[in-house]
Amino acid sequence: MVSVVNSDVRSNAGSAKRRILQATVSALARDGLDGLSIRRVAAEAGVSIGGVQHHYGSRNALLVGASEFITEQFKERAARLSESSVGNRPVDAFVAFCQLLANAESDSPNERGAEASIVWLWYAAQATRPGAVAEAFTAAWAETERYLQSRLAILFPTCDSGQEAGYLLSLLDGLAVARATDSARMPPERARAIIQRHFTRLTALTVT
Amino acid sequence: MVSVVNSDVRSNAGSAKRRILQATVSALARDGLDGLSIRRVAAEAGVSIGGVQHHYGSRNALLVGASEFITEQFKERAARLSESSVGNRPVDAFVAFCQLLANAESDSPNERGAEASIVWLWYAAQATRPGAVAEAFTAAWAETERYLQSRLAILFPTCDSGQEAGYLLSLLDGLAVARATDSARMPPERARAIIQRHFTRLTALTVT
Repeated sequence: MVSVVNSDVRSNAGSAKRRILQATVSALARDGLDGLSIRRVAAEAGVSIGGVQHHYGSRNALLVGASEFITEQFKERAARLSESSVGNRPVDAFVAFCQLLANAESDSPNERGAEASIVWLWYAAQATRPGAVAEAFTAAWAETERYLQSRLAILFPTCDSGQEAGYLLSLLDGLAVARATDSARMPPERARAIIQRHFTRLTALTVT
Repeated sequence: MVSVVNSDVRSNAGSAKRRILQATVSALARDGLDGLSIRRVAAEAGVSIGGVQHHYGSRNALLVGASEFITEQFKERAARLSESSVGNRPVDAFVAFCQLLANAESDSPNERGAEASIVWLWYAAQATRPGAVAEAFTAAWAETERYLQSRLAILFPTCDSGQEAGYLLSLLDGLAVARATDSARMPPERARAIIQRHFTRLTALTVT
């Protein structure tokens, strides 16, 4: 799962900030939270330690920054998806959006989805401790759930959109965990089929 | 989520092993993976460092051991639940079992469920890296999914039990993530209601 909230990370190719965040994503996906340090990210990004610290003063700040970076990339993909979905049924476009949220999109290599899911999973784990990471995580997920609820209320007017949003977000989160930890058990096509199943069922029960 | 596979951790109250694992669970829930070290666990358990190393030679071994310990506690609760469900409809007993798997049971304080979910979330995050933790995690989840599939095939004979097991396990995993990271957004009663909703829908569509 990635969140859909705003972030201040811009896709300014070649910027130091972008290189720092890409290095953070790579370090997390490869070595986990243990492997994440300002020193290592600086070396991998080709930036001085002071240069990293100027933008991100702590390892937790790097973790939140990497999650926002993943979110930016998600938004770019969602915008492209939205353009290519013009003319599709609104429900189909929303299903595709949810597949993207679970890092199970069809037009991206398996590895990219897994990398995003891995960053997100470390972010979630670190958010179990009170502090800045938990606050950022909680705010992002509340915003994502509100967004899902607003779409569900429009697309399935007779559903209990509040409960359905929590149901859908939990499903997408769980699929993303499986994508990050066990992509052999949960390849993207299986995750997409499960999401499709969820919406087929919701449609059958709410659309008369 | 906790797995339902066998483990060699016995509930021998007062044993050093049990104290070590309880200390590991407490350290993970309180301080995260950063706070988990053989030295700290030894101090908290009142055991020598050599005593910890005799049973668990590395931090990753402690992490896998803590997950198995949580699983043992889960099995004890599941067994009690099973006894108290005698006479209930089989579907209702399975729903209660799934609520337990998502750490959303009703007869346990909120904190206990959250602690189990937090241990599980660190375990999942560390399982994103190749190695012994990933192998243990993958085996446990495959076993859990097979168990869910076998129950679904019996309770809902007309369903596609393979896909339904992946669907259900993802939902329970996602609910457990929410329980661990944001129990205000996902209190146990909301998680239970979502699981109930999932089964009400499955029943409506497969039982004629």
